[in-house]
Amino acid sequence: MEIINGGVCAAEGFVANGVHCGIRKNKTKRDLSLIFSEVPANAASVYTTNLVKGAPLTVTKQHLADGKAQAIICNSGNANTCNADGIEIAEGMCELVAEAMDIKAEDVVVASTGVIGQPLSLDPIMAGMEELTEGLGKHSDLAAEGIMTTDTRMKEIAVSFEIDGVTCKIGGIAKGSGMIHPNMATMLVFITTDTAISSEMLQKALSSDIQSTFNMVSVDGDTSTNDMVTILANGMAGNKEIAAEGEAFDIFMKALNTVTVYLCRCIAGDGEGATKLLECNVSGAGDLTTAKTVAKSVICSSLLKAAMFGADANWGRVLCAIGYSGADVDVHKVDVSFKSAKGEITVCINGAGVEFSEELAKEILLEKEIEIQVGLNSGDASATAWGCDLTYDYVKINGDYRT
Amino acid sequence: MEIINGGVCAAEGFVANGVHCGIRKNKTKRDLSLIFSEVPANAASVYTTNLVKGAPLTVTKQHLADGKAQAIICNSGNANTCNADGIEIAEGMCELVAEAMDIKAEDVVVASTGVIGQPLSLDPIMAGMEELTEGLGKHSDLAAEGIMTTDTRMKEIAVSFEIDGVTCKIGGIAKGSGMIHPNMATMLVFITTDTAISSEMLQKALSSDIQSTFNMVSVDGDTSTNDMVTILANGMAGNKEIAAEGEAFDIFMKALNTVTVYLCRCIAGDGEGATKLLECNVSGAGDLTTAKTVAKSVICSSLLKAAMFGADANWGRVLCAIGYSGADVDVHKVDVSFKSAKGEITVCINGAGVEFSEELAKEILLEKEIEIQVGLNSGDASATAWGCDLTYDYVKINGDYRT
Repeated sequence: MEIINGGVCAAEGFVANGVHCGIRKNKTKRDLSLIFSEVPANAASVYTTNLVKGAPLTVTKQHLADGKAQAIICNSGNANTCNADGIEIAEGMCELVAEAMDIKAEDVVVASTGVIGQPLSLDPIMAGMEELTEGLGKHSDLAAEGIMTTDTRMKEIAVSFEIDGVTCKIGGIAKGSGMIHPNMATMLVFITTDTAISSEMLQKALSSDIQSTFNMVSVDGDTSTNDMVTILANGMAGNKEIAAEGEAFDIFMKALNTVTVYLCRCIAGDGEGATKLLECNVSGAGDLTTAKTVAKSVICSSLLKAAMFGADANWGRVLCAIGYSGADVDVHKVDVSFKSAKGEITVCINGAGVEFSEELAKEILLEKEIEIQVGLNSGDASATAWGCDLTYDYVKINGDYRT
Repeated sequence: MEIINGGVCAAEGFVANGVHCGIRKNKTKRDLSLIFSEVPANAASVYTTNLVKGAPLTVTKQHLADGKAQAIICNSGNANTCNADGIEIAEGMCELVAEAMDIKAEDVVVASTGVIGQPLSLDPIMAGMEELTEGLGKHSDLAAEGIMTTDTRMKEIAVSFEIDGVTCKIGGIAKGSGMIHPNMATMLVFITTDTAISSEMLQKALSSDIQSTFNMVSVDGDTSTNDMVTILANGMAGNKEIAAEGEAFDIFMKALNTVTVYLCRCIAGDGEGATKLLECNVSGAGDLTTAKTVAKSVICSSLLKAAMFGADANWGRVLCAIGYSGADVDVHKVDVSFKSAKGEITVCINGAGVEFSEELAKEILLEKEIEIQVGLNSGDASATAWGCDLTYDYVKINGDYRT
């Protein structure tokens, strides 16, 4: 497996574009993206578990009932959620794409991200459709920019891999930043692959993968109303279609996981206001659920997040978060260490503090990527969760996001 | 029922004091408090559900096994948690009080609050004991100050009420601020009453009351390792002992609830870095659990808390928090309004936005106490939860709390 350029356009037959159509007032920020496959693709998707669901998710669910899609349209700047005419607008977006690309509206996936509860007009989308579709090409970067909200960096990746001697590619783009606490579903992520794989196996791969990737990310504990990951597989790589579990499926899963883990780290590290990526690695758990519960509880702790912002080795907050996680843990067996490019320092053994160099701890925690290593010493299961620090800028961004 | 002065010393026979003994370096901040009843009292207590428990809680639990106590000792500046010698130190604190006051160590309740995982020495406590016990008097304020950590204000209240023509009093002090998300238990709160009431009924009253008071408070989602509410009832009011449910018990419950709701509002409004008290009132729920789950989810949302700091009527975040709360709610029936001393404004009806004056909304949200009114329109149950806004100062306080 090899990391390659091209993001969501790396796979054969996929093109994309992103333009400014006017949903946002800021003309320098693209606000409408389109991803298109030259041929119909198998599709799979997972959605937020929030009971308040964006209208685009409802429409997409209907359109993906047959496991097929050919295009993904997504705007930023408005979530099209909690609007009386939301469904109509989301359907309208699909129809505009269908007309422009000469495909069926039912083969279009639609997504929106931005402020909740403000009416979304079709006018700017209609006005921007010509520029959007005429400019389609290997422009993953423009599409990645068009779906950004408070993100500060584009998030894209692609890898190539071989199945039975055939080169396949898979790539994705993501937006993250705030309202990030995926639960059984996840954020806005679009993945494309030219691997031939049945809709059933594609859904199985995606639903399985997100349990240890996007569902293990949290920026602020708020599960969004518009979370969605969609994957399109157009089969243009020419491999024998993956229609069951086996070696080929395993290879595909591994490639998919490389893409999703990378995007998870991008989303967490570019959380609203974040200055640091936090990764909590839990090992020695009695079972996987315990490991995941503990890891996620640690990276969700506001107190620990603020301590990490201050590069303060306040490990008591790690213990505290383990203790209230709800997982069945023997707290007298817990070891904790902090690790970064500057080294690793053990701060707690068997649930009690040990003497350590505050200077070295500070040096380690001043890095941009911090690993919090938790050993439970009660079994073989392990899990990883990703988050970010809590900063002044998180408060600033969210104190006046809407106005 | 009447609100009176005196806090934890309002009830007959209770004295208190708070001194600086040297656990904290800052000599202007009291760090050791004692509450004492002239006669043995019935006692009840509830504790944190965090699996990581402060050593003082373990010792207190043993001491209260017989439902009796006569004194409460509490230090701030060090939580005496995750320390290898924690139990020994907590027992030592009780013995120092027992010796000085000529009572049994088993009749002393002990509590500690502050940093987790730093050894606590008995030396300063031993050194301060003489000043602490000799200065005992009607000094609820000094005791309330001695248990403060990052609190900016003392939290005390007392009320008087009548049972069968006999005047009884109940009062309490609390500390709050950070690591506040009580769950089945609560923060450090000490309540005293001269009401005659059996240990069993006292525990029943407390355990019942906290479900709708302290357990409905959150500052930052972090359930502390040292949460504890203890109530002492010394019977000196002279009423006939309350030994079963009935009118007298109901009157006592109402007085207790007045004390606890007041302290809840104090704790939430003085949350770390807070500039505003948030109160979420949920009505029209199908059942009590739904109402409580929704109310707590709303006041726990980091995004809503930041929006309230910015006085931004971003009601979509209220809907979002209701949607991911886990409660079974028909989101298309939800109404939301914001209310304060400046008026009330409806922002969402039947799950969709309505036009409203941004100017009036801003004026309402610039107040210090904000009510978020949520109508579920699906039943008769209601609940209230208290929280605070998320501010730059929360990040500042917790970025360098320990060092």
